[in-house]
Amino acid sequence: MKKIKASIVGGSGYGGSELLRFLLYHPNVDIVSVTSRTHAGQNVSSVHKNLSKLTEMKFENSDVKDIAEKSDVVFFAMPHGAAMEMIPAIIKKTKIIDLSGDFRLNNLKDYEEHYNFGHKSPHLLNKFVYGLTEINRNLIKNADNIACPGCFPTGALLALAPLAKNDLLPEYIAIDSKTGSSGSGSIPSAATHHPTRANNIKAYKVLSHQHEPEIKQELAKIGKSNLSISFVAHSVPAVRGIFTTVHFLSKKEISSKELKKIFSSYYKHSFFVRIVDDSPESSFISGTNFADIGIFAKGKKAVVASAIDNLVKGASGQAIQNMNLMFGLDEKTGLQFPGMHP
Amino acid sequence: MKKIKASIVGGSGYGGSELLRFLLYHPNVDIVSVTSRTHAGQNVSSVHKNLSKLTEMKFENSDVKDIAEKSDVVFFAMPHGAAMEMIPAIIKKTKIIDLSGDFRLNNLKDYEEHYNFGHKSPHLLNKFVYGLTEINRNLIKNADNIACPGCFPTGALLALAPLAKNDLLPEYIAIDSKTGSSGSGSIPSAATHHPTRANNIKAYKVLSHQHEPEIKQELAKIGKSNLSISFVAHSVPAVRGIFTTVHFLSKKEISSKELKKIFSSYYKHSFFVRIVDDSPESSFISGTNFADIGIFAKGKKAVVASAIDNLVKGASGQAIQNMNLMFGLDEKTGLQFPGMHP
Amino acid sequence: MKKIKASIVGGSGYGGSELLRFLLYHPNVDIVSVTSRTHAGQNVSSVHKNLSKLTEMKFENSDVKDIAEKSDVVFFAMPHGAAMEMIPAIIKKTKIIDLSGDFRLNNLKDYEEHYNFGHKSPHLLNKFVYGLTEINRNLIKNADNIACPGCFPTGALLALAPLAKNDLLPEYIAIDSKTGSSGSGSIPSAATHHPTRANNIKAYKVLSHQHEPEIKQELAKIGKSNLSISFVAHSVPAVRGIFTTVHFLSKKEISSKELKKIFSSYYKHSFFVRIVDDSPESSFISGTNFADIGIFAKGKKAVVASAIDNLVKGASGQAIQNMNLMFGLDEKTGLQFPGMHP
Amino acid sequence: MKKIKASIVGGSGYGGSELLRFLLYHPNVDIVSVTSRTHAGQNVSSVHKNLSKLTEMKFENSDVKDIAEKSDVVFFAMPHGAAMEMIPAIIKKTKIIDLSGDFRLNNLKDYEEHYNFGHKSPHLLNKFVYGLTEINRNLIKNADNIACPGCFPTGALLALAPLAKNDLLPEYIAIDSKTGSSGSGSIPSAATHHPTRANNIKAYKVLSHQHEPEIKQELAKIGKSNLSISFVAHSVPAVRGIFTTVHFLSKKEISSKELKKIFSSYYKHSFFVRIVDDSPESSFISGTNFADIGIFAKGKKAVVASAIDNLVKGASGQAIQNMNLMFGLDEKTGLQFPGMHP
Repeated sequence: MKKIKASIVGGSGYGGSELLRFLLYHPNVDIVSVTSRTHAGQNVSSVHKNLSKLTEMKFENSDVKDIAEKSDVVFFAMPHGAAMEMIPAIIKKTKIIDLSGDFRLNNLKDYEEHYNFGHKSPHLLNKFVYGLTEINRNLIKNADNIACPGCFPTGALLALAPLAKNDLLPEYIAIDSKTGSSGSGSIPSAATHHPTRANNIKAYKVLSHQHEPEIKQELAKIGKSNLSISFVAHSVPAVRGIFTTVHFLSKKEISSKELKKIFSSYYKHSFFVRIVDDSPESSFISGTNFADIGIFAKGKKAVVASAIDNLVKGASGQAIQNMNLMFGLDEKTGLQFPGMHP
Repeated sequence: MKKIKASIVGGSGYGGSELLRFLLYHPNVDIVSVTSRTHAGQNVSSVHKNLSKLTEMKFENSDVKDIAEKSDVVFFAMPHGAAMEMIPAIIKKTKIIDLSGDFRLNNLKDYEEHYNFGHKSPHLLNKFVYGLTEINRNLIKNADNIACPGCFPTGALLALAPLAKNDLLPEYIAIDSKTGSSGSGSIPSAATHHPTRANNIKAYKVLSHQHEPEIKQELAKIGKSNLSISFVAHSVPAVRGIFTTVHFLSKKEISSKELKKIFSSYYKHSFFVRIVDDSPESSFISGTNFADIGIFAKGKKAVVASAIDNLVKGASGQAIQNMNLMFGLDEKTGLQFPGMHP
Repeated sequence: MKKIKASIVGGSGYGGSELLRFLLYHPNVDIVSVTSRTHAGQNVSSVHKNLSKLTEMKFENSDVKDIAEKSDVVFFAMPHGAAMEMIPAIIKKTKIIDLSGDFRLNNLKDYEEHYNFGHKSPHLLNKFVYGLTEINRNLIKNADNIACPGCFPTGALLALAPLAKNDLLPEYIAIDSKTGSSGSGSIPSAATHHPTRANNIKAYKVLSHQHEPEIKQELAKIGKSNLSISFVAHSVPAVRGIFTTVHFLSKKEISSKELKKIFSSYYKHSFFVRIVDDSPESSFISGTNFADIGIFAKGKKAVVASAIDNLVKGASGQAIQNMNLMFGLDEKTGLQFPGMHP
Repeated sequence: MKKIKASIVGGSGYGGSELLRFLLYHPNVDIVSVTSRTHAGQNVSSVHKNLSKLTEMKFENSDVKDIAEKSDVVFFAMPHGAAMEMIPAIIKKTKIIDLSGDFRLNNLKDYEEHYNFGHKSPHLLNKFVYGLTEINRNLIKNADNIACPGCFPTGALLALAPLAKNDLLPEYIAIDSKTGSSGSGSIPSAATHHPTRANNIKAYKVLSHQHEPEIKQELAKIGKSNLSISFVAHSVPAVRGIFTTVHFLSKKEISSKELKKIFSSYYKHSFFVRIVDDSPESSFISGTNFADIGIFAKGKKAVVASAIDNLVKGASGQAIQNMNLMFGLDEKTGLQFPGMHP
């Protein structure tokens, strides 16, 4: 098989770092270009020093049109608001996988409410498929443009989709997420300052996080509309990992066993979802594309907990999983890294 | 004023460590005895090395009756199940402040369901006042025996009491707690093994934690019975701190401002409760007896978050706060330590 | 006794934070002014949230001359290079305690080599006493202006002074220091970015750190000149604490016991130095003004290890210890905080 | 090529965990047996949950002779003192790679002094090749039995070998090592108790660590005898990684550039050694088999710093690197994992 020519626009951050980690060893991929305005001309391994001796590539500052021309697929790993300015020039000229929030929401109104930018390419919103692989697998296979889900929505939706599908959700659910610091990206900020982050637990953007409409939008597509979602993100002193705890009062009494059966059935063709016996633990999925899910019920009370690596299943890993489908490959290709313990 | 003669039974763990840190500098207290079977005869500062040069005391292995005789108050800082065997011999002979779970629950049935011991002193269950200072202040002032609350119930009840009092709680609430590792005590175990704990987020005892009946019991006393509580404890890679997020759908629409007013009014005489503007952060209360509470509402959705230091407000600090009241002192005495930043 | 009127210039960083923590509860101090250009007009507790309900002070942006006029002592807790511009206007008008590096070195040449600023007040370099309390106690008692030592030199010199005094040092010594992240200050930077700092061990400024000439200068005063010092600073994933390991080959065989005796004798009047049995541990001095020292010898090989809290004994605590001496107080006053375990 | 049949004796600890992570994906290996007395009969992935869905193997409790019979190579990943009891029965029947300290030292006397066991198989000490790949590559290629180096000696010897070879070492050197907690293994202990480990820096076994004679023995083989080594191990709050700082006073003045040239030349055929520009950082080699080395000199003062992952290059990775050579494979095979950033 001819190799897929892949490029990464915005390769100096954590999204780019993780794309490189997997793509350099992907058996069906040749990386043709990695861009970075700040580091143009420098070795990729001068920024991602873990890659020393593993790649001789240099960061480029090429025009996105030139990149598109020589690429079968272009990954965008830019901060929110950047891809929407670059993509109109290359749409239809190459396959596009965007890791930012620019094309996740279908309604312009949601952007106005939850993002602090005016959307530059609203006419393209309907050209992107929402890239939560386990839920949109068939759409993704035929898509040209993918908007990869946010890290919190990935963890939450994997815990909620089987419930929405089986009409088990009440009107009100609580989604309580805990994230490591790498989700804040590679630019230092007050939220990631080690002296204060290292021993701190706090909530942020309570009831106003931009990932809430994304969760609502996708659950509506699965069949559950008009949900009242109490979404609270917390920062905890881990580096990698998002742990999401969904609390809800089931419409009817249900046992853990029955709930687990529903999940196992829903995910029976999904290699990267593992239904675990007790609670998932973020350390066991760290560095991998797995989503581990734990399921608990008592009377009508139910709790579903998921753990993902925010940079892998919550970003770069899922992006590659989607690429695999778009090019007719097994979705596992190049992603079967076992993680480390400890 | 004559000094209070205080003793600590079980002084080698974290509860004892924190009692010593405060009591050694408490202006109205003389510590007369600190016991430890394992370390009897050794310097207290050989275990609590932070106290080197600050105390010359040695651990004793005295009989609890002898200790009671020479003490105005005895703190029990033992693992669950130990105090209940020792206390019958000294009840009414001295004031007792128990930090364990042995006398928190009023119904024997709850013990049978949630603790793995047969209760040795069920006849004493009704002799203890539940020592959540801010809620039971008047009862505590006149009490001889105090059962100090668990760390999770302290954080949860401080976030819930004003809501229960003002009949704002629906039938179902989610209490999502995150704790540091010091809550597991000073004995090494798999749950506190650094290689696995340091980067891990997980839930445990989901929907079956022994602190749930304690929360229910106390909310019922305040006025809210028949609650369905989804209580999930999580361990995160912090050492100190419990962060509790209460999610609920209010019976009626309520604004953040109104909710804050209710909390401010409820806690207006409570020095150690601070209503904060955004989310509380566990680092700011670390080492202190403060409980910081943040309040959020949007439509009918409401979130109340509290942060306490599990070893201070969640254990030893609150125990001393209660002692202060029992002996007619200002509850702040000896507890006004500002915490550290960072 | 009349209270000491103290002010803090530059009170929004970690130096200011720790000065406030101790001075607010110092029995002989009234804080009259705390400045911050960035936060002028805001509550001190809006930045140092651990101080909520503990102080009503606001940050000021007053002229340093006005502050000097109403103060008995002014602490400067500014970044390197700032105090040297402000101090000429107030010298001799109030006592001055500078926590920065601006007046630590006696030779202008050393500044030119090791700091990236042109010194603005070289004529004042000889007006400052080097404030390592245990070594310069008598000079400090009579000083008007104190240059507080750097955090690394404090740890290193306390481990070296008894050796220099007793002529036990060879020509070459290795000083290997490990520091927590709070030493980098409160401004986020690449070095303190949690995702990379949290699991990382690295050296920095190897053989070129600006604290090396400071160590050399002070050892020369004690009696050991012409040392060849291999000083390497390392960053490790702790927040507080500097652990310094001094390795040297003694001129003659010496036992651990003999070495300990020398240290105990040298520090017999120094409350804040504790000679410990095995290795010191940074956690036991965290938050305190103590310096714990461990001593090891085997044949001619010798190792002395010290642990201090970089923000306390390495900065604000030692500054207050010096203030106590300058005003005729016991050096322990207001500093007997026991630290926390764990 | 026929696959190598490999077995792991003692597969439930961290050594076993890392062997499995690499061997499961090694293109030339079939794992035929993994033993654990404690977990016999259980799924390997019930202990190493990161391997769920990646292996169906179960822990066995087979006799070591049966295992040897069906294996081309047997890895021993047992605590010190265990392999020496099992190996006599299978020596010469299969290739053996031991990760413990049982066969690293050539002199029985060193065992008596530094290990707390009587050696059970002293007659086999001279049957093992010391498995520091970069230094003993040719011996390893022809060896049947390998004693893999300790984690500290690996980091130290890689920093010292080129110096010993080129006669640049003086009589006295300081080796200052800092290790993460995973080096203590998977059994919880006081040293790895999260509440005390998480913020602590301390030294241990100062001047008496069992890895010092190992370093001395190997340096003598390279050509530098009679060294006086000040070896101090420190524990810091990382999980993975050993950072070693070697300080020495060179016999003659030498520049960083010259020193680097010597190292580059010495390691020119060693893929897994990377000479870096500034300090190595343990985070960049975490999870990988790389050893990053930084080199600094000023006058006669010199510092060489190395960073390795204690569980990979310091244990399981190097074991596999040695296996590759023993079976005629490229030493990189199955080990080119790029590590994660962050």
